[in-house]
Formats: sequence, C-alpha cells, structure tokens
Amino acid sequence: MSPIIKKKAGVLGATGSVGQRFILLLAEHPDFELSVLGASPRSAGKKYKDAVTWKQVDLLPESSSEIVVCECKAEYFADCDVVFSGLDADFAGEIEKEFVDNGLVIVSNAKNYRRDPNVPLVVPIVNVDHIDLIENTIKNQTDKKGFQICISNCSTAGLVAPLKPLIEKFGPIEFLTATTLQAISGAGFSPGVSGIDILDNIVPYISGEEEKMEWEVKKILGSYETSSNEIKLLSDKEIKVSAQCNRVPVSDGHTECISFKFKSRPAPSVEQVKQAMSEYVCDAYKLGCPSAPPHSIIVLDEANRPQPRLDRNRGNGYAVTVGRVREDPIFDFKMVVLSHNTIIGAAGAGILIAEYLLAKRLI
Amino acid sequence: MSPIIKKKAGVLGATGSVGQRFILLLAEHPDFELSVLGASPRSAGKKYKDAVTWKQVDLLPESSSEIVVCECKAEYFADCDVVFSGLDADFAGEIEKEFVDNGLVIVSNAKNYRRDPNVPLVVPIVNVDHIDLIENTIKNQTDKKGFQICISNCSTAGLVAPLKPLIEKFGPIEFLTATTLQAISGAGFSPGVSGIDILDNIVPYISGEEEKMEWEVKKILGSYETSSNEIKLLSDKEIKVSAQCNRVPVSDGHTECISFKFKSRPAPSVEQVKQAMSEYVCDAYKLGCPSAPPHSIIVLDEANRPQPRLDRNRGNGYAVTVGRVREDPIFDFKMVVLSHNTIIGAAGAGILIAEYLLAKRLI
Amino acid sequence: MSPIIKKKAGVLGATGSVGQRFILLLAEHPDFELSVLGASPRSAGKKYKDAVTWKQVDLLPESSSEIVVCECKAEYFADCDVVFSGLDADFAGEIEKEFVDNGLVIVSNAKNYRRDPNVPLVVPIVNVDHIDLIENTIKNQTDKKGFQICISNCSTAGLVAPLKPLIEKFGPIEFLTATTLQAISGAGFSPGVSGIDILDNIVPYISGEEEKMEWEVKKILGSYETSSNEIKLLSDKEIKVSAQCNRVPVSDGHTECISFKFKSRPAPSVEQVKQAMSEYVCDAYKLGCPSAPPHSIIVLDEANRPQPRLDRNRGNGYAVTVGRVREDPIFDFKMVVLSHNTIIGAAGAGILIAEYLLAKRLI
Amino acid sequence: MSPIIKKKAGVLGATGSVGQRFILLLAEHPDFELSVLGASPRSAGKKYKDAVTWKQVDLLPESSSEIVVCECKAEYFADCDVVFSGLDADFAGEIEKEFVDNGLVIVSNAKNYRRDPNVPLVVPIVNVDHIDLIENTIKNQTDKKGFQICISNCSTAGLVAPLKPLIEKFGPIEFLTATTLQAISGAGFSPGVSGIDILDNIVPYISGEEEKMEWEVKKILGSYETSSNEIKLLSDKEIKVSAQCNRVPVSDGHTECISFKFKSRPAPSVEQVKQAMSEYVCDAYKLGCPSAPPHSIIVLDEANRPQPRLDRNRGNGYAVTVGRVREDPIFDFKMVVLSHNTIIGAAGAGILIAEYLLAKRLI
Repeated sequence: MSPIIKKKAGVLGATGSVGQRFILLLAEHPDFELSVLGASPRSAGKKYKDAVTWKQVDLLPESSSEIVVCECKAEYFADCDVVFSGLDADFAGEIEKEFVDNGLVIVSNAKNYRRDPNVPLVVPIVNVDHIDLIENTIKNQTDKKGFQICISNCSTAGLVAPLKPLIEKFGPIEFLTATTLQAISGAGFSPGVSGIDILDNIVPYISGEEEKMEWEVKKILGSYETSSNEIKLLSDKEIKVSAQCNRVPVSDGHTECISFKFKSRPAPSVEQVKQAMSEYVCDAYKLGCPSAPPHSIIVLDEANRPQPRLDRNRGNGYAVTVGRVREDPIFDFKMVVLSHNTIIGAAGAGILIAEYLLAKRLI
Repeated sequence: MSPIIKKKAGVLGATGSVGQRFILLLAEHPDFELSVLGASPRSAGKKYKDAVTWKQVDLLPESSSEIVVCECKAEYFADCDVVFSGLDADFAGEIEKEFVDNGLVIVSNAKNYRRDPNVPLVVPIVNVDHIDLIENTIKNQTDKKGFQICISNCSTAGLVAPLKPLIEKFGPIEFLTATTLQAISGAGFSPGVSGIDILDNIVPYISGEEEKMEWEVKKILGSYETSSNEIKLLSDKEIKVSAQCNRVPVSDGHTECISFKFKSRPAPSVEQVKQAMSEYVCDAYKLGCPSAPPHSIIVLDEANRPQPRLDRNRGNGYAVTVGRVREDPIFDFKMVVLSHNTIIGAAGAGILIAEYLLAKRLI
Repeated sequence: MSPIIKKKAGVLGATGSVGQRFILLLAEHPDFELSVLGASPRSAGKKYKDAVTWKQVDLLPESSSEIVVCECKAEYFADCDVVFSGLDADFAGEIEKEFVDNGLVIVSNAKNYRRDPNVPLVVPIVNVDHIDLIENTIKNQTDKKGFQICISNCSTAGLVAPLKPLIEKFGPIEFLTATTLQAISGAGFSPGVSGIDILDNIVPYISGEEEKMEWEVKKILGSYETSSNEIKLLSDKEIKVSAQCNRVPVSDGHTECISFKFKSRPAPSVEQVKQAMSEYVCDAYKLGCPSAPPHSIIVLDEANRPQPRLDRNRGNGYAVTVGRVREDPIFDFKMVVLSHNTIIGAAGAGILIAEYLLAKRLI
Repeated sequence: MSPIIKKKAGVLGATGSVGQRFILLLAEHPDFELSVLGASPRSAGKKYKDAVTWKQVDLLPESSSEIVVCECKAEYFADCDVVFSGLDADFAGEIEKEFVDNGLVIVSNAKNYRRDPNVPLVVPIVNVDHIDLIENTIKNQTDKKGFQICISNCSTAGLVAPLKPLIEKFGPIEFLTATTLQAISGAGFSPGVSGIDILDNIVPYISGEEEKMEWEVKKILGSYETSSNEIKLLSDKEIKVSAQCNRVPVSDGHTECISFKFKSRPAPSVEQVKQAMSEYVCDAYKLGCPSAPPHSIIVLDEANRPQPRLDRNRGNGYAVTVGRVREDPIFDFKMVVLSHNTIIGAAGAGILIAEYLLAKRLI
C-alpha cells in the first residue's frame, strides 16, 4: 500500500478560540496535516506554544506546539491545500480576500462573506450541495482557482439540521421560532463572557445573533441556481423565522427550543417527524467523509433530554440531538435541539467541509 | 393613635422552601403576625429552629425560631385570620379541605385546587378582582365562612403580568408563546434539582409545568361571572398558549422569552406596548396594600436586560421586569420577562393576596 | 435640631468595580454625600450613567447617575473632605500622590502605598488605632494636611479579623496557614475572570495575592510606634504566615480555611477561642461609626457553615463569620472564615475608615 | 493467536454513581467483561437500562444496557472472577462479607472494611505492594479463597500519590496539611449535593471526610508486615496530617492545596521535589497493567495550573497532576494537587487494582 500523502492545512487566527479548535481537530486527522499557523503580528515569530493561551480541555498537540507562528499573509500559506480561518470579523474581510485572490482555498468561520451570493454558506450535515457552485465556478477558470466557503453561525447550525430532512419529506416550513440557550464558549476568549456576568445569571441578548439566525436559515435551506451561479435564498413566503437568543452558564453546547409549522396540510404525525429525522443520512457521510456522523440527527425519547452536559458530544460533536418532539398548540410541533457550538457549529464544520472538498477533488 | 392589632397568620408546610419564604415575609410585616407553624408529624413538637433546615439568604427570624411546630390540623389554627399553605401537592388536597371546612381562610401555593372554578387563581398584581367571587359567596353565608384562594404557578405569574395591561388596552391576544429559563429555587429542597444535574447544564423539561402554564393563563386572564359565581376561562379562540420550560443554573428568577399576536389589526407600536406596561398600576397598589409595587411592570431599555442576578429584586421581588420589546417577524411582538419565582411567583404572591383580603375586609 | 451638614466625598476610578461599590455605599450614607466622580479621560465629560457599565445587584442610585465625570486631578476634588480611590494600581501611584500633595485625604483600595511605613494599612474592624499615626503627623502641620490611608487586600481582611481578639487575649500566634477560596467579584470587571475560565473550574492562583496576604498580616497586626512615627511590622519570629489562594465560581464572599498555633502554652480551649471572637467589639463600633457592626466576628456552631451565599451579608457585609472552630492535629486550631470581599474587603472598609476619621475629627 | 478469554466481572450497587463508572470502564476493557449487575431489590429483575438513571457524560454502553439486574447475593455472582462494589456503606458491610465468605474477590469503594488491618487499602498508583498480604494469606488456604481489597477515599488518593515518591527519596514527612476543594460528583446522586446548596456557593464541610483522610494516609503509606500478616499504620510520630474539606461547584476533579515538611534536614530543593515526582513510575505500570499511567504524577510548570476542567482527564483520569511546587514559609513546601475523584479516586482505582490482581495471578 502506498503511503497517504496528507493535504496541507493552514489556520488563520490560530491563537483564538476557534483557531485552537481547528488545531485540535487537525492534530489527528487522517487526511490533513497542519502546516502553517497565522496570527496577529504580536504573535508572529513565536513558537505556537508561547504565543497561545491554550484553553482547551484536550492538551495542546505536541506536533503543533513547536510551529512558529507567521503573520496572516497569503505568501506564507502558498503551499496550503486549504486554509481554515478563525479570524475575528474585524480582520477577516481583508485578509480572507487577499488569500482567495492569491488562489487559496478558505474555509472561514467569520461572518464577513456569509451574505455574498457567490459564497456558499455551509452546514456540512445539511447543504454540501451548495458547494456545486464552487465546482461550476472553478471548472471554467484556467488560472488561479482560489475560493471561499463560509461556516454558518453556531446557533444556526443546530437549527437547520433537523429542518433539512423535514422539509425534504413534508415540504416547506411556513413559520419557525427558536429560543436559544447558548454556551459561553461561543463568545470566544478575549474577553468573551465575563464570569461575574454569567454566574447565577442569564444574559438575554447576543449582539447580532438573532439577525444572523433569521437570515442564514434562508440561505442554507435555499438552493444553488446554476443559471445565475448563485445561492438563492428562501423568500419570506417560503419561511419566516423568529429567533430569541440567550447566553447561559454552560461551557459547551447550544440548546434551542423550537416550534414550527409546515405549509402543507395535513401535517405529519409526531412519529413521522421523528422518523424522518432519525433516518436522515447526510451527503458528506455518504461520500465517506471521515468526520461525518452516521446519524446526523439523533432523536431521543427520554422526557428530559437532550442536555448539554450529557449529549453535546454525541457523534463526536458532529451530530445534532433532538428531543421532546411533541405537538404544539399554536404551530404543528415543538421540540428541543442541541448542537455542539464549537464542533458542528464552528471549527468541526470547517473540517467536515474540507473533507467534502477533498472527496469532491476540489482541493 | 391606637395600637395596630395585627392579624394572626399560620403557615402550613412551614419547613419547606415556600414555607420558609412565608416566614421571612411575615417576620416584619406591618399587618400580620406569625402565630402558628404546621409541618409533618416528624417535625411537630419541635421548636421551628430545630425542625427546619433553613436555606434562605436572609437569617431565620428570631421571633419565628422558637415557635413550636404543630401538625397540620385545623384545630391548631383556629385562631388564625389567614393560613398560608406551602404544602406539597401530595398532602395539600386533604389538609386544605379540612381547613376550609372548619371555616379557615387558606391562601395556597399548592396546585390541588387551582382548577376548581369556585376557587380564584390569583396573581395579585393581575387579577385580584377574581376575589369578588369570594366576597359574593361569603356574604350570603351565615355560619362558617372558610374559603380558599390559590397562588398561580411561578412561571405563570411572570407571563400574565405584562399581558394584563396589554389586553386591557389593545384587546385579546390570539397567540402567545413562552420559552422559560427557570431558576432552581423553584424546585424546592427535598430533593430539588441536584447539583450534578444542573452544573454546566440545562434540563429542558419540568414535569407538568408547560401544561400548568398553558391552562392557568386562561383562568387568570379569564373573568368572574356573577351569574354562575364561577371564574370563566378564556377559550382557545380567545387565547392560544404554547410553553416550553427549561431549568437553568440560576438560583432565583425566572426568565421567559415570549412572543404574541393581538387579535385586532392594526397592532399597536412598540412604543405603545412599552407605555401600556409602564403605566400599569395594579389594583392592590391602588388599595394601599403595603407589598404592592408602585410599578408592577418595569420596562427596561438596555439591550441586554432583564438579567436575573441584576433585576430579580426590583420592586422587592413583587414587580415583573420586561426588556427587549421589539417587533416579531411572525407574531406582533417579542420580549423578555423576568419575575422573582419565590416572591411574586410564590410566597410573596400569597402575602399580597392576604393584604388585599384585609383591605377588602374579607379577613 | 439643626440640619446635618454632610461631608463631601469624591470617588476615583468611579466606573470600576470598587468605584461602583463606593457609590452604592455613599448613596444613602448619613454623613457623606457624593460630590465628585473621577475616571479616565475617556469617561470624563460624560454623565456617570453614560460612562459606566453598571454591574451591581443594587440599582445605580439616581442621585449619582447624573453627575458629570471628571478626570482624576486634584483641582477638581478640592472641595472634598475625603476621596475614596478605586483606581487600578497602574494609575493609583501618581494620582494619589498628587491628591495628598494637594492637601486631600485619600482612602485607597489600591496596593501602591500599602507598604509605606508612614501610611496606615487599615482593616477598620481590626486596627483603626494605626490611624493615630495620622493624628500625630498632622497635628504638627500648619499648612496642608493631606494624608493617605490604605485599605487592605480583600483576602487579608477576613484573615486578620478573627486573629485580633485572639492575640489580644491569648498572646502571639506563631504559625498561621490560610487556604483561600476567593470570589470572582474580587477580580474586577475589565476583564476580570472570564466565564469559560471559572465555570465548572477552580483557578489555583491569583497573581501577587499570597505575597500580599503574608506581608499585610504583619503590618495590620503590627503596632504604631510614636517614637519613629511609623507602623512597625510583626517580625518573622512574631508570626509566620503561609497563604495559598484559589479563585472559585462564587460571586461574592471569600472563604478561608485557616489553622494556627499560639506561642504560649498551654493553648486555650476551643470554647475560649470561640468566646474571645464572639465577644470582640471593634473600636469603630465603640466610637459610634454607623457602618461598624455590633459583632465584628460572628461565630457559627452549625457544622457546615459559614457558606458564602448564606452568610456573606451578615452585619451588612461588615462582619466576618467564623465556623468549624476545632482542634488541629498539627497546630492548635483550625477554622473557616468568611468575609464579604467587596464590603469589609474593599469599598466598605474605605467607608468605615472615613467614618472613623470623621469621629476622630480628622476630616 | 488464540483468543483472549476475558475475566468475568460483577458490579454491586450498579445503578449508583460509582457503579455507573465501573460499568463504563469495564465496557471496553481488554481483560474484563461485565457479567453480572447487582442492585437493590427494587431494581432486581429489570433490564439495566430500565433500572438506572444514567448520568454519565459517556453513553450507557449497549452491551450493559440489556443485562438483567439481580439482587446483591453471592450465589448470583458465583462465576465472577472479581466483583467491584459501589455499594452504600449502609449495605456494604453485610453484603461484602457474604461475598468474601463465599469465596469471591471483592474490590470495594465502600468505607466499611478500610480500617480492617487484614484488608489492604489501596491507591493503585501508590501501594499495590500491600496486596502481598492477600498473596500470603491465600497461598496457605486450601479451600475457598475469597478476599477483599478496599479503594481509598477519593480525596485521599490525590493526597498520597505525590507523597509516595517523595518519602521514598527524601524520607518521612513529619507534617502534612491539606485543604480540599472537592467536586460534587463525589457526593453521589441520591440525593448528592443539591443545586441550590452549591450554586454560587461553597460548603466547607463534608461529613467524615477529614477523619478519613487523616487516617487513611497512615494506612496507605504504612507497610505490610509479614510477621503479623497485617498492614501496619504509620504512627503519629511518623506523620501528622491535618485536613480541611470543602465542596465546590465543580463537576469532576478534586483540587487539594497541601503543605508538608520532611523529617530530615536539610530539605531537598524545589527542583528535586519536582523531579522525584516526575520520575516516579508506579508498580502497576511496570507490571503492564493496561490502565496504569506511564507517568503517575504529572508536574506542571504553568503558574495557574492544575485546573479541574483542563487537567482532570490527564492520564485518562488515572494520573495525578501537581502544580505550583514552591517553598513554604512554615513547612518545607506547598503545592496544588488535582485528581479525578471518580477515576483514580474511585471506580478507576478499582479497575486498576483488579488489573494488578490479574497480573499477579491472584484472580
């Protein structure tokens, strides 16, 4: 058997919260090897272990700790097959553009290009088919073939995952409400959520989060249009979303209480809804992506589940867990959705997207 | 000036979570004095300080600590002008009935008689007018005049308070959704919520809570019908309620993310909604009840409020705080409501009901 | 009766954690009125309510909210009878010196001048007699009479309070160990302790804290020497202190597990130790200072007390609570001490010191 | 290669906190297979998944979920090579005796037989040599050869581990103080520590814990005497221990702040102390026990470590982590020790003891 040659991966914003997660997930990845780490000029030139304040439950991988951090300039990443970006929005706009302009492939957790109709916004257990847009775009290019794919907002990932098979099976969802109970790891480290603000407390507001959720759902559940070579959003008539977002004293795992109504009558039964979610297998898994969960949506029957401490790591954090599926007095159904905000909701999504790109020979 | 003669108060379930709160609130009350404490046979005969595991942030009042606890039998409470019940539902049914049958006035936090159409279910900053039922009932009685009033479920109190002035001003609410983030003090002490279940965790289920909320709203916002001498519930056509209840790692204070739609078109503006709530003055305050808050509903403009740790004690826990009033993409409005679950949501509500009974000369 | 003319008070570092506490405590003070608020140039010129991110459980006092913040320059505080400083150590050194040089009286929570032998370091329920140094100093001055008094480190306050009456009664303590479990409010707000660092976690290190505790005990329990007009520290032979400091997920209240050995043999009994602490009345209380607790040290007999959530507010946060006094297999005794870190451990100590200065006609 | 025949293992108290951990650790064990589950008569006859309220972060292993629970009687466990007991002390005394009398091998987490001089009390990274007592005992027996080994108290395990190599290298420790910050998982589930008691709080007392620690250290660090065939305790002159125990809001991982003094002068240097701990390799590892950590004691140099959330899983929870090794003003050294209370402090210790028994052919 010939040796596997791993693809080279870079990480932008390597010292931040999302960057650290990328490094952990890449450390033992079968197909990628961490090659370049980019961070602020303040960190550049230092060994990674000296530049970072490591805050993960898993130890800093030894293989990454000695890498010398560089600045976030495309020239240093020229050899990378894929570059994962955990940059803050303040910097991501310009830096990511420079990378794509220089022919690099960016998978970004930043919000800056999510609304660009030529950039797929991807929850990899939901809509990898939007990546067809990239395929179509670059097949006609003779020269550089840099491109960008955006990871969704963390709370959006958990929301859209169970909706995907439901819409496939039972048609459009007319109304969708979601009230979130979001973990503090989602707020990053510097400064993140302060202890005194969240101990014995709830903060019923996360800046920009509700708007992101209400908009991103429409893009992720929208469709790739070959004619315009753009992602077409669902219209307000196709889905109306209302989100209310809260920060809660939980380390990892976003809980969302959702309710929704199908457009078609009669609505399916609770059992049909549960079955549709349980049976759903995502395209990334079918294609053999190593991180893709065999069951993207795990439906629990216990009355008091899912719970973040007990269920956030199901499917290694790549699966979404659903519980308490029941009829709703106003809409058709209500249920509770739990997703791991830093895995399927951030860095893990990026890794799985890259695995899909590799499987489709786009990198 | 002649000395004030205080009314005598008894407490049933005195060693429990709600009972302890009753004792605290009575300790310095201008109109009531704690007279009899009832608890289980296991506690009977002991001094209160020896029978109780006191878990309140405020110290056990010295005046109460030496009272010898008795069993929950009406004969021991014969002198009481009012008896507050913090009994568990397992015992409240029979004991409370015996008390009323013996001519005593019971204000109960237990759920047992809440659905009885002849028993007012009262959130005292909302519907003290339902107590007219009692007034009409007892005025025709020549002999014993025992009666019962029920305190609402804790999460219901926060929900109905802001709706009251809105319905008064803008007419019926057609749809109402509420997702709660409920404090652990609401679960009582024995055993209550275990630490390992709630640390770094959310429990998306509280047994029976959603059903209580969805039903109680209809009674509390319903009306007293003199013809039948009953409380008439709102019908499903007058209001539809959907609740999703979660337990969160917060000590006191229930947060509720709600959305609602008025029946009439056009809907009022956000400013009109905020004004109606801010201007609302409850009847108990107008009547001079000492615990009634001058502003029953405190409307906050800060983006990230109300927060339980910072706002639960407003109005000494008798006021409900509302924030983030904004338009909703699906219904008319969404907003966040915070209420102190053991004060306006439990024992404090009982005290304020008794103050109203006194002001109306019903005790 | 003639109207009381309140003394004018200024606050430096008014927008910070300690500054906010000073403002709360001054808002309803019988003898002081808040007059000037100083903060960074960034805040200067704004109304206080617009400059501050208010994070206290009690509401921002209306009387303070409209005060226009000024820079921390002595000229703006010329009218103040006393100035409380909640400045960061980075700024306190120079600013406080300028204030004293300009004849102002500074009561500071900053660490900068704590080791100056001419500056009393005062825990006001312990060693107000050290303020005699000031009295002696300024009585010989004809011109300006600015001076400075330092508040101790928060964890030192809880430690020395129970030692004071024990040393008075039973002689020197030879060895003293203290392991602290410190609340996060002690770390301030910007950034303070991050939520992700303290949720479900302990941080067994607080920069500089152990050194402060080990040194400050020797000054506070030392004595004022008239000959040199300096505070003389206890020597290593008079007391040896070893501290281990931990940050824990508690909002307010420092718990300290201490053990100690008296120099004299035989050691007193557990009962004698408890009695000495219970009977102790501090000089500030004897002098009628309004915030001084009648019992500076509250000794509890329950096996599992003191607990921060239940006991931190005893004596309005000015008293220290002691429990579990028992014999120690190695030293003489071990016990648990709880103190409110932002009241007797910080801002409250400053207020009580100022009350003492007023009682002694030093301001 | 011939197939490995696994040893049959039983678990007593299978539905409790420690029992659940045993089941998790056995589920994928290379040498043991779970064979019998014993619990209370209430659970007997049910499938395990129906009898248990599973509260582990890892999922209930499918292989265990279908096992029908039996009562804790020796006859049902006759085939077991080893039986792990997670029984409550109320039941362990009688049941474990019956098992041993019937020739079974019990590895117990209960406290009942820890003080029996014929029962080794074992922290398997510290004193597996005490198991020689068993070897010597049973080699002379012709018939049944049931015996018992006790697992230490959870907080004792973390304390003795670093002391072992230090005593080996630098001689006896004269004085040892330990203040613990213990996780709530150590208190079990029914009821365990209630949420309202531990949220935003510290409980400075754990019933019986300090006495256990102070006594168990002397047995574990004591020696097996062949003459008497007993474990001989260290005397008070050989070590004096003082413990102060606190419950803190942490899910897993006991932190202990310890200080100690060697008997011999001069004391070693900080570097020598760190080196001795780092270099220590436990006998169980040398013998090839699969769960034994290559480094039993991991010494960290970062100023603010170990922290329970970040370090409790080192060595899969079988290693103890030490940080902040520094000189102590009173004794020789102080440092912070962290151990996983349910792994090396409870169930994991039992598994590792059984691995050692197997390696020594005692089962």
